[in-house]
Amino acid sequence: MPVVAVVGDGQLARMMQTEAVELGQSIRLLAGALDASAAQVVADVVLGDYTNLDDLRRAARGASVVTFDHEHVPTEHLTTLISEGINVQPGPHALVNAQDKLVMRERLQGMGAPVPPFVAIETAQDALDFYRQVDGAVCLKARRGGYDGKGVWFPHGAEELEQLVEDLLGQGVPLMAEKKVELVRELSAMVARTPSGEVASWPVVESVQVGGVCAEAVAPAPDLREDRASQSRELAVQIATELGVTGVLAVELFEDAEGIWVNELAMRPHNTGHWTQDGCVTSQFEQHLRAVLDLPLGSTDMLSETTVMANVLGGPDDPDMPMPQRMAEVWRRFPDAKIHLYGKTWRPGRKIGHVNVSGNSPAASAALRRRAQLAAHFLVHAVWADGYMS
Amino acid sequence: MPVVAVVGDGQLARMMQTEAVELGQSIRLLAGALDASAAQVVADVVLGDYTNLDDLRRAARGASVVTFDHEHVPTEHLTTLISEGINVQPGPHALVNAQDKLVMRERLQGMGAPVPPFVAIETAQDALDFYRQVDGAVCLKARRGGYDGKGVWFPHGAEELEQLVEDLLGQGVPLMAEKKVELVRELSAMVARTPSGEVASWPVVESVQVGGVCAEAVAPAPDLREDRASQSRELAVQIATELGVTGVLAVELFEDAEGIWVNELAMRPHNTGHWTQDGCVTSQFEQHLRAVLDLPLGSTDMLSETTVMANVLGGPDDPDMPMPQRMAEVWRRFPDAKIHLYGKTWRPGRKIGHVNVSGNSPAASAALRRRAQLAAHFLVHAVWADGYMS
Repeated sequence: MPVVAVVGDGQLARMMQTEAVELGQSIRLLAGALDASAAQVVADVVLGDYTNLDDLRRAARGASVVTFDHEHVPTEHLTTLISEGINVQPGPHALVNAQDKLVMRERLQGMGAPVPPFVAIETAQDALDFYRQVDGAVCLKARRGGYDGKGVWFPHGAEELEQLVEDLLGQGVPLMAEKKVELVRELSAMVARTPSGEVASWPVVESVQVGGVCAEAVAPAPDLREDRASQSRELAVQIATELGVTGVLAVELFEDAEGIWVNELAMRPHNTGHWTQDGCVTSQFEQHLRAVLDLPLGSTDMLSETTVMANVLGGPDDPDMPMPQRMAEVWRRFPDAKIHLYGKTWRPGRKIGHVNVSGNSPAASAALRRRAQLAAHFLVHAVWADGYMS
Repeated sequence: MPVVAVVGDGQLARMMQTEAVELGQSIRLLAGALDASAAQVVADVVLGDYTNLDDLRRAARGASVVTFDHEHVPTEHLTTLISEGINVQPGPHALVNAQDKLVMRERLQGMGAPVPPFVAIETAQDALDFYRQVDGAVCLKARRGGYDGKGVWFPHGAEELEQLVEDLLGQGVPLMAEKKVELVRELSAMVARTPSGEVASWPVVESVQVGGVCAEAVAPAPDLREDRASQSRELAVQIATELGVTGVLAVELFEDAEGIWVNELAMRPHNTGHWTQDGCVTSQFEQHLRAVLDLPLGSTDMLSETTVMANVLGGPDDPDMPMPQRMAEVWRRFPDAKIHLYGKTWRPGRKIGHVNVSGNSPAASAALRRRAQLAAHFLVHAVWADGYMS
């Protein structure tokens, strides 16, 4: 069976492993530590640093394909690996668009995809010019390395903007700015693409963010206009195809009164796709493996009318109640709650798991959201948010 | 998180591992070899012999519970482990009923469960007496160790029976006989039970046997009379409860013109429950872990109206086409086929994987059976049984 080498040791790699095992395979990891989420459950672990070319070479040796559970591998290393005959999916020409927010926006604009007005920020004056141009609705972003709300700033006023830009440029942070979208909500359109060019898209989900971190995903996005749903799916397919993405691509979108706008791209399984594990014929993790191996893609049909995912994020402190007991309490109340945990120790705000809940009643999504929220809240706090007594 | 120690290294343990990982856990194995199906994908492997008490002790050390992927551990060892404070689920008092066909039938008869007439065979004369009693419709069985059609004989005539019994008793094989059921079909009723006594049953499936080996499972059993479906589920619950079974119990049933009859019991996840991986909210593997850990059981609701499983059994020879290419061909034709492979090398007749296919059209089961059969056949033979050309 083919060996998929995954650079990264987090929960995304861990959940690829469970799918790989069911397919009769087993992934290899390039991991930073043996106790990392994925390294706990994979036998074939290469310990190393994903910014080190030799470590990458060690992980790639004899593998059918090298892929990723994050976007942070230097593209020059990937170019070198490819020149040495290694099969890297997605390749650096695609991946750079998930690494550099300015490069991505320039490419998307070039292909006619809807992106908010943006500009490269080389000087404080660039920022001030843009500030005037968009009537002060400025979102400042680090071009690289931001995630979960990090590397994004919404300055209040020109003076704060100027100061912030000077500070960040002084620290050597490459910057860009874009017009802040007065968003109604966030959506996510996910697709998988093989090197041969086959594409398969999942239904568009609503992604509920709290403090810049994904808290929930509701599939399909409730009350999304049909034309916007199909536009979003087609856009994800177009982006995957034109950028030459392989594996899973998540297109994070803003929806406002006018329509949809691309926010970010991720070229790997994504938090807004965890619902597919229990809600779809083919999960994003199985699909990613199939896609990077250039195998035919699986059906993205939903198994229920609605599936909701709620993240389990470490709370301000870790309750005394042991996690298995918290799981027991959740299951006693919700026998259909699908709990996924990542083998991670608690830290405030850390993603340690998620819960999926599915249902078929037409108006189910509000009730399912409530169930998923309650379950995730209990796993974090060992308390029912609605005062329920068992 | 709790550690579940599993005695056994086959595909059932392997599929427990994928569910354990999603629950944030990881199982420990007592395995016979590091390249066994489950041992390939579990980090915490104790190499040893399940008939050796010290090896069992090493596997049990520090685990929350000891459970099994087969029934062959000597019950006296389990009794010893329990006396040493080890939590063994299911316990020996229950497990003996899955080990000894005569003990099981005596217990089931005692509780009023429907079993065909049976008798202990101590001498050839016992067999001949029973032969007359049931008008020659004799099925002879080894009391212990049979599976997949092994250890079961249907002698033609009294003379053949007498010779067979003399031979087997001479070899020291303890025997029993039962009246051969003129069966319409085989069914399987599966249930899980916790040490606290919670039970949850899955829909009854039709189990299609070829040469004594499970070839297909169709869920729910097509056209099963409502009263027989509920009788089967209730019977499985009754057996689990009265025998004190914990974990998953499969009750293999014969259906004939009169009704249903118990054929065999298995106290672990079972081939006729593999469909639950893709067809139910809670798979038999997750449920087994929850049950032996005495956690609340999950919903056994189906995700589709019908799910069919077809086994991938090694053919007479192994085709040249590599398995990943066979998978690709199957997926190209059936994007919804869920392929599960066990990491096992080919041997004629060996269970190396299975395929699940689900659907919702009311008359779907015949079409789904055909799809599952075609997919499994292609994985074995690298040929479409219906002459399909891609």
